[in-house]
Amino acid sequence: MGKMKLHWSPRSPFVRKVMVAAHELGVVDRITTVRTVVAMDKVAPELLPDNPLGKIPTLVLEDGTVLYDSAVIIEYLDSLGGGGRMVPAAGPARFTELRRHALATGFLDLLILWRSERAKEAPPAALLEAFATKADSALRAIDAEIDAIAATPVGIAQITFAIAGDYMDFRFADLGWRDRAPRFAAWQARFRERPSMLATPVVDG
Amino acid sequence: MGKMKLHWSPRSPFVRKVMVAAHELGVVDRITTVRTVVAMDKVAPELLPDNPLGKIPTLVLEDGTVLYDSAVIIEYLDSLGGGGRMVPAAGPARFTELRRHALATGFLDLLILWRSERAKEAPPAALLEAFATKADSALRAIDAEIDAIAATPVGIAQITFAIAGDYMDFRFADLGWRDRAPRFAAWQARFRERPSMLATPVVDG
Repeated sequence: MGKMKLHWSPRSPFVRKVMVAAHELGVVDRITTVRTVVAMDKVAPELLPDNPLGKIPTLVLEDGTVLYDSAVIIEYLDSLGGGGRMVPAAGPARFTELRRHALATGFLDLLILWRSERAKEAPPAALLEAFATKADSALRAIDAEIDAIAATPVGIAQITFAIAGDYMDFRFADLGWRDRAPRFAAWQARFRERPSMLATPVVDG
Repeated sequence: MGKMKLHWSPRSPFVRKVMVAAHELGVVDRITTVRTVVAMDKVAPELLPDNPLGKIPTLVLEDGTVLYDSAVIIEYLDSLGGGGRMVPAAGPARFTELRRHALATGFLDLLILWRSERAKEAPPAALLEAFATKADSALRAIDAEIDAIAATPVGIAQITFAIAGDYMDFRFADLGWRDRAPRFAAWQARFRERPSMLATPVVDG
């Protein structure tokens, strides 16, 4: 069987979503990773023919079909085994998982934008304040809902929440998120011991 | 029958996605819109209990269940009539639609970030250059694919491409996109005459 090619980086939390899901789904050996360096202010010319937005993860199937973004790739990987494991196939449980995934992904997007912004020379104070308010609001909401989230099968929402936790440890140590969202932190400390998480460490390089 | 409540603004292209889809699906009369003012640097406190990320669109169902983001809301509205109209239910056509939707949404995200960035006092030159390169690459890709896109039933990808076109007319008149992507522009000029588009004008207020 041929392999799929994944435009990959060890630093991207959205790439990590795909890799953790691939481990959970047992399809990681069907993927070859290709290191692709991108940033908000850096374009990878070799990536643009596959993904004109220049974003990773981007998956190229054996027949040349290209898939992105991370949620689309994960649905595809899930479909290889029949589907319905990363997001329930139908019903209220499906919409609950999708809404939680949107919360987790939106939270991660917010952290990434916040990090980019606060690294600049003179970031607008109102913008930094809005990031802090939204991050605090999201952290409280996740903490309040994490027991219900933990009671569902491992899916795309749990994976993304766990990665967001690791991302905060990595990039927002100053946020003190483990003290501010103790139930979320306790759940995440268990989730990150899963083989899928241990096999996909975030490294700065 | 009770109504669903949509946190709404006449300026948000992602809110417009939901409204255009609601018109196409024939469910717009089941939605009450509530004007909610948000921005990247502005938090709407009344929105946070429904959506802790402070983003619109956010839909509140009659039983209090909350849904976001726009793609999740549109899938829910589609499901009210049995589903499968906005995104094919399965098979290669589903993944093609999802990948095109990711292209359209990513393009719109990029334009919104670019607009926010270039409005600042001293935006980093490398960042502005990366935005311009990615937007050009995406415009070319959309132009190259638009005939194939136009040959599919109206779904979430077409709606988002059409809204991105209107957004460029509204916020990026200087981009000259209609000259640079003439096939996309010609398709978009037809699509925006649909009743769903005419019923949801973008206004600056």
